[in-house]
Amino acid sequence: MLELFYAAHTCSLATHIVLEEVGAEYSTKRIDFGSAQQRSAEYMKINPKGRVPALVTDRGVLTETPAMLVFVAQSFPDANLALIDDPFAFAQVQAFNSYLCSHLHVAHAHRMRGYRWVDPDDAHSIAAMQRKVPESVGGAFDLIEREMLKGPWVMGERYTICDPYLFTLAQWLEADGVDPNRIPKVVDHRRRMSERPGVRNAIAEELAQGE
Amino acid sequence: MLELFYAAHTCSLATHIVLEEVGAEYSTKRIDFGSAQQRSAEYMKINPKGRVPALVTDRGVLTETPAMLVFVAQSFPDANLALIDDPFAFAQVQAFNSYLCSHLHVAHAHRMRGYRWVDPDDAHSIAAMQRKVPESVGGAFDLIEREMLKGPWVMGERYTICDPYLFTLAQWLEADGVDPNRIPKVVDHRRRMSERPGVRNAIAEELAQGE
Repeated sequence: MLELFYAAHTCSLATHIVLEEVGAEYSTKRIDFGSAQQRSAEYMKINPKGRVPALVTDRGVLTETPAMLVFVAQSFPDANLALIDDPFAFAQVQAFNSYLCSHLHVAHAHRMRGYRWVDPDDAHSIAAMQRKVPESVGGAFDLIEREMLKGPWVMGERYTICDPYLFTLAQWLEADGVDPNRIPKVVDHRRRMSERPGVRNAIAEELAQGE
Repeated sequence: MLELFYAAHTCSLATHIVLEEVGAEYSTKRIDFGSAQQRSAEYMKINPKGRVPALVTDRGVLTETPAMLVFVAQSFPDANLALIDDPFAFAQVQAFNSYLCSHLHVAHAHRMRGYRWVDPDDAHSIAAMQRKVPESVGGAFDLIEREMLKGPWVMGERYTICDPYLFTLAQWLEADGVDPNRIPKVVDHRRRMSERPGVRNAIAEELAQGE
């Protein structure tokens, strides 16, 4: 039995969707960012990074979305969501997800978590980071639109773990100040993703548990 | 035949080491950051991200260190450097490498590449980011020291693709203002890594081609 620690409106949604889509037996536990529960002593025992997501398995706790997505895919091989048996295709899946975690998500994080990279009291620099987000996040989405999203799914005809991860980060693009009209393929992908039953179930479950 | 595009003193060293250690047939091509060759029209055709590393394979170009490391490991399965046949162990390998690319490397990049996240002309914010690097990079290394590096290798008794990647990023810790005395296991790991023939060969080859 798997247990997913998540927070609403965060990248944990990607793993939540994949758990739904492979038909895993799992439960979820909501971490409340409003009360900084992710840094509570109790949660830090589960994930010393003080972040979500974390996935409790019968062999221990896993963190980091790209790793968790592959773990779920590999644990439910029939769905073949990571194309893991083809080293080149798998590397493309991994390269895409790695770009999301280390470029796109990082660019986005400068809007609300700038204190990670400058003194939190330095209002000038915090605001300067926020002003750059439309350009840095927009640039990452431009590259995805132009070079990476093959269509209809990220990897082409094959639906993979790249799709729920892109969908999850694409939730934030308007709030990041990116004009959706400049990335029509990404926005169309997001719309088609939002119609999948597994995506609807995951989102509905998170909303039912509150913000 | 594989061809690695690299730049000296960058994270491309991690893949270079693994190519050496598995005994791959490969060649290297140096990209000169001093003349911004990574953004030349010629190189952008190979890697539209304008970054290193990039690995040219007979099926196409791969990017992103975590993806490339697994690709090389999976292409040379006898060395079993990614523990890929054990989904939980593989997820731990991937979580470690994902942390390096999305947290440690990102924290480090704020010292010299702050222009990615603020206006390049904003000297105040660029300097503010630089001042935070000892704390942010140091914090990431503290977590690695305390929670992740099992010893003697990152994953314990098994040498994996985590080790050359950690070694590569640990090259920069003094320049990032992190006191090596606070992370003795990381520094000892770095020393032991530096004695491996594959590591020596990769570094010597990069130095022979110039800065």
